[in-house]
Amino acid sequence: MNAVEEIGKRAKLVTSDVANLSVDIRNQILLDMSSALVNNWQEIVAANKKDLDAATQLSGPMRNRLTLDQKTISDIAASLSAVAKLADPLAGPYDNWKNHTGFKIVKKTVPLGVVAMIFEARPNVTVDAAALTFKSGNAVILRGGKEAIESNIILTNILRDVLRKHHLNPDIIQLITDTTHDSVNTLLNLRDYVDVLIPRGSGQFIDFVVKNATVPVIETGAGNTHIFVDDSAKQDEAIRVIHNAKTQKPAVCNAAEKLLIHEAIAGEFLPKIVDDLLAAGVELRGDQKARSIDSRVIGASDEDWDTEYNDLIMAIKIVHNNDEAITWINDHTTHHSETIISENLNHVTDFMNTVDAAVVYQNVSSRFTDGFEFGFGAEIGISTQKLHARGPMGLSALTTIKYEVFGEGQIRE
Amino acid sequence: MNAVEEIGKRAKLVTSDVANLSVDIRNQILLDMSSALVNNWQEIVAANKKDLDAATQLSGPMRNRLTLDQKTISDIAASLSAVAKLADPLAGPYDNWKNHTGFKIVKKTVPLGVVAMIFEARPNVTVDAAALTFKSGNAVILRGGKEAIESNIILTNILRDVLRKHHLNPDIIQLITDTTHDSVNTLLNLRDYVDVLIPRGSGQFIDFVVKNATVPVIETGAGNTHIFVDDSAKQDEAIRVIHNAKTQKPAVCNAAEKLLIHEAIAGEFLPKIVDDLLAAGVELRGDQKARSIDSRVIGASDEDWDTEYNDLIMAIKIVHNNDEAITWINDHTTHHSETIISENLNHVTDFMNTVDAAVVYQNVSSRFTDGFEFGFGAEIGISTQKLHARGPMGLSALTTIKYEVFGEGQIRE
Repeated sequence: MNAVEEIGKRAKLVTSDVANLSVDIRNQILLDMSSALVNNWQEIVAANKKDLDAATQLSGPMRNRLTLDQKTISDIAASLSAVAKLADPLAGPYDNWKNHTGFKIVKKTVPLGVVAMIFEARPNVTVDAAALTFKSGNAVILRGGKEAIESNIILTNILRDVLRKHHLNPDIIQLITDTTHDSVNTLLNLRDYVDVLIPRGSGQFIDFVVKNATVPVIETGAGNTHIFVDDSAKQDEAIRVIHNAKTQKPAVCNAAEKLLIHEAIAGEFLPKIVDDLLAAGVELRGDQKARSIDSRVIGASDEDWDTEYNDLIMAIKIVHNNDEAITWINDHTTHHSETIISENLNHVTDFMNTVDAAVVYQNVSSRFTDGFEFGFGAEIGISTQKLHARGPMGLSALTTIKYEVFGEGQIRE
Repeated sequence: MNAVEEIGKRAKLVTSDVANLSVDIRNQILLDMSSALVNNWQEIVAANKKDLDAATQLSGPMRNRLTLDQKTISDIAASLSAVAKLADPLAGPYDNWKNHTGFKIVKKTVPLGVVAMIFEARPNVTVDAAALTFKSGNAVILRGGKEAIESNIILTNILRDVLRKHHLNPDIIQLITDTTHDSVNTLLNLRDYVDVLIPRGSGQFIDFVVKNATVPVIETGAGNTHIFVDDSAKQDEAIRVIHNAKTQKPAVCNAAEKLLIHEAIAGEFLPKIVDDLLAAGVELRGDQKARSIDSRVIGASDEDWDTEYNDLIMAIKIVHNNDEAITWINDHTTHHSETIISENLNHVTDFMNTVDAAVVYQNVSSRFTDGFEFGFGAEIGISTQKLHARGPMGLSALTTIKYEVFGEGQIRE
């Protein structure tokens, strides 16, 4: 049994310990974890400095996401306290009914058991994932990006110490410190111990996980997100929404990547949105029709239509009508978030009913696909699959059900 | 693109057609399908005879499950009509709420899309699966056992003709007629077209599917099911429940396979249950302690404790207490159905809270793990995993959610 298998085995052994804690104790521990982070901020910053010193190759935005200081640690601690205040996802009342022979069936909400997460070099995710899985009564196995290893070790040690102080087994929260691919490959196949694996990262990495995992996986994140501007759209509103969805935070999965425009308004609308986006520094690529209307649009390749840029780039296509927009989106969507800008109720209804995505918007920026913005109080990721959880996942995505049956000797005839 | 890929592509193309049918039309079509089966019973029996003539190697019970006559066809038709009467799993009211910026979020229940099922040579499952997936607004791809191919072709042709009569694309229901392993292997990896795959069959086959599929899978069925008789048990009740769980239908997944007995009552209880089970023709295997109490019990090997016999065989183990029973079960369970026979509330509570199975029983035969017995009106299978669906799966297991968002130009700050 290798080190990762040992971690899996230990996690499985403590699932009942954490599942059967009262919500008051779970919340008190979360608050204590929050205080412990604040109290140990200097030690965390020192460990984080080791990571930053080693990570000389990291690009600016990735370096920013890796960096911890007193302020970011205080923010992370605050989000732990916020998790303590969320409603208990395990709380009843549970559905219950009687079978025709008279025994009682209770459909109980219970934790998944052992949740594994693989994620990028973002120390805040380490703490968030531990907090959300703990709040929902799960044991967690964390495998963060290698650039954050020193930060992750100190952070999980602090959280584990709080568990020890509450006389709990610290293996409720475990970090895999082997940051080679070997540890990922082992984790993908720990069927005896891992109840669900949630990978985060690039579309390519998530594809790798889906293709190679035998443990159940919840796919997250990839977003080749479209906006369709219908001929009935309020054009000023369309420009505002597109501008926001493309430029407010281009590196994230709910940012817009593609723009479809109804041909009836393209002559008027395209130059206006090109003005706006070019001024915001967006590179615009497009099909032949778009380029013939506005020569500032450069040529898009076939590959463009399936690429999530995560950058200030957008590809534009002119379509004949609502049906063509829907078909095009269904052929190229990553099932994350899709938007129609329209005042035509029939078009909106068709779009909503037929576009195959977790979230479908009318006249709203797709940047709102987010657990906090949806009012879930937390987010463990955004599911782009249809099983178990779809769209922004709050605490309830970390639970399952169990039937408890109470009888007096009933047998089946 | 091979034939199975073509089937997948055609299924994906008709998902909106079936998803957007009103419940009245879906129900009318199910009733028409029911009548069509009854009206064509002679043609079905003739096709079935070809299968039976070819299946000279099939064992008695498997041959019985393959055989169709006027009566069984009438039963299958009746179950189609029964599906028409079930509540619509897509019906609202749906949760809806406003985001802080004022846009409305509707959490809608929608079909999964394309459901694929791989199953044994049981023509009734062909019709059941088609009926349940259709009722829940899905397109279905059916891959039945090769011994039933002629029966499956005629049955699906009859169902598809009804779709045609209602001016619908018959590809809402498709059968894979290639009964080689190649078609299974292709189906397991049709990620562009298949939203969920539900395999049925032996534990070994389901393991193969889980290890080789890249499409999302719902595991079903394997049941290494335990009964623990506690020292507080009513012994007559225990004998009645064990007898039923072991002998009433030994070939199915919710039949009991293992018996654990509290050592404090083993001397008294074991000979009584041995009397009962031997009289019912059950072969009894056991650990050293059980054999020392009753020499009619023969030796069990290590392998026995992880084997689902699906036969009139049971292995018996004597345990020190409730905790040992729970630990043993969690080490050997297939997470299907587990039972405690006990009058001790503390023991029952510990057992319920700690045993990791879809259904946990007190004083009830595990044979009740069944969608009909649970009151779901239908069963597409019994999930032994924790994601999406757990335990008996009714129509709602064939649905997912979708967020529809309606706004007036909201952007994220």
